[in-house]
Amino acid sequence: MQKNKPLLSPAKISAYEAGGFIGDYQRLIKDTVIPYQYSVLCDKAADTEKSHVIQNFKNAGATLRGEDTEDGFFGMVFQDSDAAKWLEAAAYSLLLFPDKELENTADGLIDLIEKAQDADGYLNTYYTIENREKRWTNLQEGHELYCSGHMMEAACAYYEATGKDRLLRVMEKNAEHIYRHFIVEGHEGFPGHPEVELALLKLYRATGNEHCLALAEHFINVRGVDSHFYEKESKARGWNIWNSDPCNTRYTQSHLPVRSQSDAVGHAVRAVYLYTGMADLASMTGDKELLAACKRLWESITQRRMYITGGIGTTVIGEAFTTDYDLPCDTAYAETCASIGLMFFASKMLENEIDSKYADVMERAFYNTVLAGMQLDGKRFFYVNPLEVVPGISGVSLTHLHDLPTRPKWYACACCPPNVARLISSFGKYAYGENEDTAFCHLFAEGRVRLENGMRFTCKTGYPFDFTVTYQIEKGGKLALRIPAFSPCFEIRINGEKMNRADGCSGEIAQSGNSRDMAGSEKSPSFSFEKGYARLDVKDGDTVTLTLDGTPYFVYASPKVPRLTGKAALCRGPLVYCFEGADNEGDVLSLAISDGSANENSCENPIGNAAFRGSSNENTAADGRAPHILTAGERAGLKEGLPENAAVLSVDALRKTVPDSLYTNTRPGITPCRAIAVPYYTWGNRGENQMRVWMDLS
Amino acid sequence: MQKNKPLLSPAKISAYEAGGFIGDYQRLIKDTVIPYQYSVLCDKAADTEKSHVIQNFKNAGATLRGEDTEDGFFGMVFQDSDAAKWLEAAAYSLLLFPDKELENTADGLIDLIEKAQDADGYLNTYYTIENREKRWTNLQEGHELYCSGHMMEAACAYYEATGKDRLLRVMEKNAEHIYRHFIVEGHEGFPGHPEVELALLKLYRATGNEHCLALAEHFINVRGVDSHFYEKESKARGWNIWNSDPCNTRYTQSHLPVRSQSDAVGHAVRAVYLYTGMADLASMTGDKELLAACKRLWESITQRRMYITGGIGTTVIGEAFTTDYDLPCDTAYAETCASIGLMFFASKMLENEIDSKYADVMERAFYNTVLAGMQLDGKRFFYVNPLEVVPGISGVSLTHLHDLPTRPKWYACACCPPNVARLISSFGKYAYGENEDTAFCHLFAEGRVRLENGMRFTCKTGYPFDFTVTYQIEKGGKLALRIPAFSPCFEIRINGEKMNRADGCSGEIAQSGNSRDMAGSEKSPSFSFEKGYARLDVKDGDTVTLTLDGTPYFVYASPKVPRLTGKAALCRGPLVYCFEGADNEGDVLSLAISDGSANENSCENPIGNAAFRGSSNENTAADGRAPHILTAGERAGLKEGLPENAAVLSVDALRKTVPDSLYTNTRPGITPCRAIAVPYYTWGNRGENQMRVWMDLS
Repeated sequence: MQKNKPLLSPAKISAYEAGGFIGDYQRLIKDTVIPYQYSVLCDKAADTEKSHVIQNFKNAGATLRGEDTEDGFFGMVFQDSDAAKWLEAAAYSLLLFPDKELENTADGLIDLIEKAQDADGYLNTYYTIENREKRWTNLQEGHELYCSGHMMEAACAYYEATGKDRLLRVMEKNAEHIYRHFIVEGHEGFPGHPEVELALLKLYRATGNEHCLALAEHFINVRGVDSHFYEKESKARGWNIWNSDPCNTRYTQSHLPVRSQSDAVGHAVRAVYLYTGMADLASMTGDKELLAACKRLWESITQRRMYITGGIGTTVIGEAFTTDYDLPCDTAYAETCASIGLMFFASKMLENEIDSKYADVMERAFYNTVLAGMQLDGKRFFYVNPLEVVPGISGVSLTHLHDLPTRPKWYACACCPPNVARLISSFGKYAYGENEDTAFCHLFAEGRVRLENGMRFTCKTGYPFDFTVTYQIEKGGKLALRIPAFSPCFEIRINGEKMNRADGCSGEIAQSGNSRDMAGSEKSPSFSFEKGYARLDVKDGDTVTLTLDGTPYFVYASPKVPRLTGKAALCRGPLVYCFEGADNEGDVLSLAISDGSANENSCENPIGNAAFRGSSNENTAADGRAPHILTAGERAGLKEGLPENAAVLSVDALRKTVPDSLYTNTRPGITPCRAIAVPYYTWGNRGENQMRVWMDLS
Repeated sequence: MQKNKPLLSPAKISAYEAGGFIGDYQRLIKDTVIPYQYSVLCDKAADTEKSHVIQNFKNAGATLRGEDTEDGFFGMVFQDSDAAKWLEAAAYSLLLFPDKELENTADGLIDLIEKAQDADGYLNTYYTIENREKRWTNLQEGHELYCSGHMMEAACAYYEATGKDRLLRVMEKNAEHIYRHFIVEGHEGFPGHPEVELALLKLYRATGNEHCLALAEHFINVRGVDSHFYEKESKARGWNIWNSDPCNTRYTQSHLPVRSQSDAVGHAVRAVYLYTGMADLASMTGDKELLAACKRLWESITQRRMYITGGIGTTVIGEAFTTDYDLPCDTAYAETCASIGLMFFASKMLENEIDSKYADVMERAFYNTVLAGMQLDGKRFFYVNPLEVVPGISGVSLTHLHDLPTRPKWYACACCPPNVARLISSFGKYAYGENEDTAFCHLFAEGRVRLENGMRFTCKTGYPFDFTVTYQIEKGGKLALRIPAFSPCFEIRINGEKMNRADGCSGEIAQSGNSRDMAGSEKSPSFSFEKGYARLDVKDGDTVTLTLDGTPYFVYASPKVPRLTGKAALCRGPLVYCFEGADNEGDVLSLAISDGSANENSCENPIGNAAFRGSSNENTAADGRAPHILTAGERAGLKEGLPENAAVLSVDALRKTVPDSLYTNTRPGITPCRAIAVPYYTWGNRGENQMRVWMDLS
């Protein structure tokens, strides 16, 4: 059925041996997160929500064998998926860090999973333990296909990691069961929570089983065609899990056939998991109508419904998208899983269209919301990622109960923590891609890269805190380097010699003086530039150096976003910065920062010594006191707990003071000061305090 | 039981014959609102929610006579209260505008009410029609005492208006029934929705029946003492109306005994109705502990939980208060009824402590939220009063469904429309008060005033658009004039001669030149000044002229309010202004107004001609382009539909433009312009458009 060849494939997990920033994170996942999460799954972690997921698999196996179980099923109806995501993370980690003990643990879990599979291929501990008769009667709420999907992903990952195909066979058998039910027997319906679509496509690639591709295509094609399906299903079964409204079809993206959808609506994680499957299928089948829908949905998210942090899903009500430009900071939902799903979607769009805008969003989501989802020590997690926190309101007001000021250890609905683990462990496939002759560097990630097409190189960089990226080519070919939107000015050197842009447009960084002087001669080596990718030929032994603009810059939102008018966010590279009370006298609400547009309220003794130059020309004018990267000495006074290598910024600001009454007609007094900003992903690591991304302007 | 004499009493409704702004509104209520609302109650209005309330009374009477009813009970469990509030409004209106037809209609309704009363005095159509056995078993949700309370208020009003005591006797009999149930028979409990407390105190004053006072005191005293009462009640009865959580005691202000309460929590209307009863009881009994609680709750509301418009109740979730300083503009609930209740509370606090801060809030609530609750033509109503509306988000986003951009005709839960009618019709008792020798002018309201203490005078003023208030004294005594907080500078003249403040402090308006020159000589007549009231002796035939400051001014919120940092609101007198799309090129989000603090981005040709002088000294400095009141000619270009006499303001502003993308690092372009502001209460009268109260500052 496959008719089309994707423009590129993601790198294999094993293709990227990470170092630097990413390597440190992958090591943290291996050393801390995976063992910690396993202890949670086994109910051996202290002071956390009960998981019971391993026991559920044991109990399902026992039930199938006709044995009694002491404690039956416990947890969410989709509890199985926590084990699947952990297993997938463990598989990726095993590829990076071989570990016999972890592999044994994983094998043990796979053994339990295999024993929990029914003879007909059905696999779901909730239904197997609770009520076998209810199988497939509640697609709307039941999560059977969702759990199968996650286990299929785990199976593919574990097969890639270890070559062991036991779980892969279990899940192929499960896929055949699903195929029989929905295709052979022709039962109606589609998954309430999309996930199985993208997973079936992975399983198809791993096994070549055409039923997997057909099934994925089927679920995508029938979705929303009968938008009353869940109503009929609900009436027919007469039981519910959460009493979810079956008429709320937008929640499950089943309000319209997927090819007719244009606005990203409903539960954000469901949405991006669905769109990922759609984009993957589109690239495999060349389905232009499906791709057009994906592009509309992409624009809907990224141009109208996405936080600057790459967070999506505005409201806690249904963990959902709301309407265009409705992006409140303090009541944001912005679930960690949704940003991970947005990375999946972006990655699959890149297989359809090589355009840096997809990788830009992937990077934005990763370095901000996804990383913020985990405490720096790997031991606590955010499910919800607000862009503003005010203790006393956040987590307290009836409308802010979901926006916690600090990370809990675990959640009753524990989808996010293992999702972060599997994402970080598989970072390579988002960072690098390939086709027959080209290596695509979507994200800048230190480490050794060995692609299927034979190209090999080593990347050296201090990114995201340093903006020089060096590629030492072992085995050459064509290199496609993404130029991020934050850095329209950049410089590429090959073996020390500056390269010209083939079409003559200037792309060089003007470090000083006249940028025309900096342009190389016509005889210089050149690169072509298309949709945000610089493309060049590299030979064995070449050294390519890409220099991006690391100057801090301010971002402004469209005035169509009511909550963000009059405000600006401070960024550097892919990192969004935030202001925390810990560094700002406990009070960031009173701060108005200077973006350089007003000079009249200047700080007498600015700490700053860097000459500020924004990444766009408009931002460079007439500014003498730039955001400044704190030196080691200047950082000494900050509250401890930030990563040592993370750049901390200071910026001119005014602290406003008014009389201590709710309203006053006294104009605020102003005190010039320097405000301190830290990368958003590091927030909430130094105790409960105020945090704000979008700052008033002075 | 009454031990104390309130410091003042509100004027009788009949004491104030209104003209001017208030008179026009009272005429609108008489001519349009009362007849329209009656047609709704009779289900004769076109295109509105069904009410059925009149039919409910008919059906209850039929049920009591053992007759079958065709259509039983329809509506909310508290539907009876809509008829009660309409009747109360009709009563006040009859005092202002005698009208035989309306009186006949009201008599007819009272006849139905009387026939719907059970032989034992019980009165409630829901329980009488639906299930007599359920009486008094669901105080938490059942609203029996709430409906009784509103009918008691109607009975007192109708008795005051017509001298007819038929409904008064019905309700006294009802009160005796309640007394028997709760006091004689000793049934536990207190009303889920406070209201009967304040009503019983009215009924006590109208009838002298000590049981009414005792019952009010009982309900206030037992509230929250057993904070598990509703849980026990819920378990005992085994049925529910809305499945409201009986453990959510903050919702019903029963989490603590009332004398121990300090924070305004829960359902905002319930809260202020309760506090009104508490404050009334405190002034009648001299209960210092109860008064102290009232004062703490007053500060909690007005210093930490109140919108600048006098709106209260931040969230739609439970129509409730949330936490301190949590005052979002766009998702505000700010129910019309809650601001009416806040006026009740303020009015009763004035009987305990003569301090202008209470009248300031009363005025703020009235001229902004209460008046905004009704369309200018009296035909449509807001239940919810946001401070920002953006079509496409407001009323559409899942978190903004309650914030409608235009007023509906009626509501299934129709508490607000008749509440506005009764409030406006009884305006005199909020505007004027008296004790044995003094006339208190809390609010500035044109018309003739005839008090019980013998004082008589006529007030002439164009307030709230003109700031000269003249009192022509017919029968003299002591006059207490409130000086609003917005006008710390003011001038009082008696028979043309400027009065000195007795303590020597300057209170005069400095119209020009040196204010010391303006002060009268030591021989000039003088007034004393205490807690915001100027007190002076007036003789028959005197003319007293109070001149307040009508200069537009800017208001800033405490930086503890996260949503309002960096913003200012434009006000004039008691009126909060807002900016609507209709007057501002359809887009107020892109506007940043100048409060005079920055002169560098000046408008080339400001329309303004008035020399701006804020109401506080800090606001007067260094500003050459003031907010300006549009002349008739300048108003010609505005979209029609504003009240002719309403002052429209223009203010220097910058219109910001950025590229049409969600986020950009291009600093916004700016275009100087004049932004147009209209009184908040007039918003949404010219079609659906953007509206914003709190503006970004340029």
